[in-house]
Amino acid sequence: MSRLRIAEIFGPTVQGEGALIGQPTVFVRAGGCDYRCVWCDSLHAVDSQFRHDWAALTPEAVMARIRSLSGGRPLTVSISGGNPAIQDFAPLIALGRAEGYGFACETQGSIAQDWFAALDMLVLSPKPPSSGEATDWARFDACLAAAGAAPVVMKLVIFDAADYAFARAAHARHPGLPLYLQPGNPEVGPEAPVDLEAAAARLRGLIDTVTADGWFAPRVLPQLHVWVWGNQRGV
Amino acid sequence: MSRLRIAEIFGPTVQGEGALIGQPTVFVRAGGCDYRCVWCDSLHAVDSQFRHDWAALTPEAVMARIRSLSGGRPLTVSISGGNPAIQDFAPLIALGRAEGYGFACETQGSIAQDWFAALDMLVLSPKPPSSGEATDWARFDACLAAAGAAPVVMKLVIFDAADYAFARAAHARHPGLPLYLQPGNPEVGPEAPVDLEAAAARLRGLIDTVTADGWFAPRVLPQLHVWVWGNQRGV
Repeated sequence: MSRLRIAEIFGPTVQGEGALIGQPTVFVRAGGCDYRCVWCDSLHAVDSQFRHDWAALTPEAVMARIRSLSGGRPLTVSISGGNPAIQDFAPLIALGRAEGYGFACETQGSIAQDWFAALDMLVLSPKPPSSGEATDWARFDACLAAAGAAPVVMKLVIFDAADYAFARAAHARHPGLPLYLQPGNPEVGPEAPVDLEAAAARLRGLIDTVTADGWFAPRVLPQLHVWVWGNQRGV
Repeated sequence: MSRLRIAEIFGPTVQGEGALIGQPTVFVRAGGCDYRCVWCDSLHAVDSQFRHDWAALTPEAVMARIRSLSGGRPLTVSISGGNPAIQDFAPLIALGRAEGYGFACETQGSIAQDWFAALDMLVLSPKPPSSGEATDWARFDACLAAAGAAPVVMKLVIFDAADYAFARAAHARHPGLPLYLQPGNPEVGPEAPVDLEAAAARLRGLIDTVTADGWFAPRVLPQLHVWVWGNQRGV
């Protein structure tokens, strides 16, 4: 089988955001991305200047690492990145599923893959205007179609009013997708201290906006991992 | 219809804990409880010394207040307490459902009610040893049976090692119930300042315990409302 470009594999920890928040998870972070979001918190898995730090691993080797980290006890594996949809994770998912592991994948929705249909959850995170990237909704819809019967949710990061308007429009376009909003994190360097009071204030502000608008569709959540571990990697 | 003893109705805000964390919600807090947990964070809805502050409202009056707070836009209503299972919430649920509102209920599982089956989610929160109360599992099982086909989850607060052992035993007894754990909050007075660093450390500690044990069944979550609003009431 062909090898996967992997920036890091870590855990078990808990999922910090979105639909599976709080769920014990091992993360497989793929290297490489077709986007360059200005506020990216995972540049070490995105920018090709870091490619020499990425491992070229067979699916069997990735699975061996997951098994080792989890003590062989099945749990949820989150395939993230970078954009994992650049690569073929079908063999890894097949290996893990045979041992009882579940798989979620987080991607911006710019590249569709047949293996989305094998996931327990596909998290599509179109990037709002503050990212500097633009969403191609035809490509997003292709991702949705590729997922087939697999559960799909939409997760959006909100930094400002334009992002919030983008979220409202995205929901209007896909009202059937469970929607998760989270405030953007302006402090993304791994050494940057996290101001918990400021993080709480950002979450409070987003909750206030949503409830004042009488917009009750989205669930509003923090990035729990940032609150608990700051911007450290590997947790 | 008979009147309901209601300690407070507030929102919309977001659900701060458990399976519906982050979901826009109006809370209906019932007055009265058959338990006296030593760390109760809602004594104003529990202790009969506060009963003169509880309103005796018809289900129609409660629904009118929910409608007013939500601007007539359907959302999730969480019936909490106290122990709401002391009273008959069937008429309120019927009124709200006819207008598109959804209903969740939080109770310790000591009293079963037929109206559990009309809920969108029943949250059973057996109280761990640190509460000073003891769980009667036959009564808990009766609550589960009363829920019928309604979704049921279990939520447990963890203050110490004995509580954690209780959680493991509760899960072993009911492995099919989705399980949510949260660290206990030792600062419950409405004026008590919340130490966010300490709250984050408690959550980190519980996550570390669960993952170190290779126990991947529970989701581990904070009390988000405490992080965002402190111990204030009405949010």
